[in-house]
Amino acid sequence: MPKQNSDAATLTVRSIGVIRSPHTVADQTPIQPVFAQGVPGRAEILPQYAAGLQDLDGFSHIWLLYCFHQAGPARLIVKPFLQDAEHGVFATRAPTRPNPIGLSLVRLVRREGCVLHLEDVDVLDGTPLLDIKPYVPRFDYRADARTGWLAAVDEQEARQRGQRSFRTDRPC
Amino acid sequence: MPKQNSDAATLTVRSIGVIRSPHTVADQTPIQPVFAQGVPGRAEILPQYAAGLQDLDGFSHIWLLYCFHQAGPARLIVKPFLQDAEHGVFATRAPTRPNPIGLSLVRLVRREGCVLHLEDVDVLDGTPLLDIKPYVPRFDYRADARTGWLAAVDEQEARQRGQRSFRTDRPC
Repeated sequence: MPKQNSDAATLTVRSIGVIRSPHTVADQTPIQPVFAQGVPGRAEILPQYAAGLQDLDGFSHIWLLYCFHQAGPARLIVKPFLQDAEHGVFATRAPTRPNPIGLSLVRLVRREGCVLHLEDVDVLDGTPLLDIKPYVPRFDYRADARTGWLAAVDEQEARQRGQRSFRTDRPC
Repeated sequence: MPKQNSDAATLTVRSIGVIRSPHTVADQTPIQPVFAQGVPGRAEILPQYAAGLQDLDGFSHIWLLYCFHQAGPARLIVKPFLQDAEHGVFATRAPTRPNPIGLSLVRLVRREGCVLHLEDVDVLDGTPLLDIKPYVPRFDYRADARTGWLAAVDEQEARQRGQRSFRTDRPC
């Protein structure tokens, strides 16, 4: 990672595959996997990375790191989908981030060679995939978390806003 | 995100700040925040991104996405720190990934302007920070997760191997 100047470093990443889903319109795509329960999708991994998938199918859930490739320009203050109030972008999961990297926790149904069959997919069709990590509650769960402005959004409202108008009747 | 060729897309990201920690030697750095409990650190955000931190301090835990800037070349098959057996790199959290992006769930103790005071820091001092996301159990927790090869590593062995030989007596 070369140092670009005294303030910032840059890293160029390259997609390891692509995410396929029934979501073809950004405005109709659920904003989190919990609002896309049962929605099927696939991660199609480039053949040169297939060896890296060994033993992944022992895990029921995986993290996808991907590029928000259709996000608009970065904005530091955003009004998130779940609340009509402005927050700093780092206090939200909005796509219009300085580095447009998305993070989704999806269910791994099965692996067929270079194809991972997924569920709970909240990602736009054609999204470039950057990384996969196994989900490990021992690492990734904190029982005592405080959740700021999101604590004020009740479950029903979150579900209604979070699902948006996604349709699951399109072929994946 | 320009299309580079028919197989891969590239994205160039730029650090939004730097992570400070007592960990100055890669081989002595804990491998996950759960193995670095109480270890202090800081995220020093570049001033031009300060507005994006608004309301972040309502959250007790945050995800750090960062560059494994001292990782060696990518390897598709790795022997992880927690087990003497080989696995595909995407079934591990090892740093030697095709895209060397790290993901750590740390405690946000308090914010002072552009500085986030953290705990449970498992990241090397000087690591370029790429993104911050709030930790939201509603989004990031699955009660029914199956954890593959990691399920065979018992808690005591994980802790012993995962802490490595980190020292907490260095100034942060």
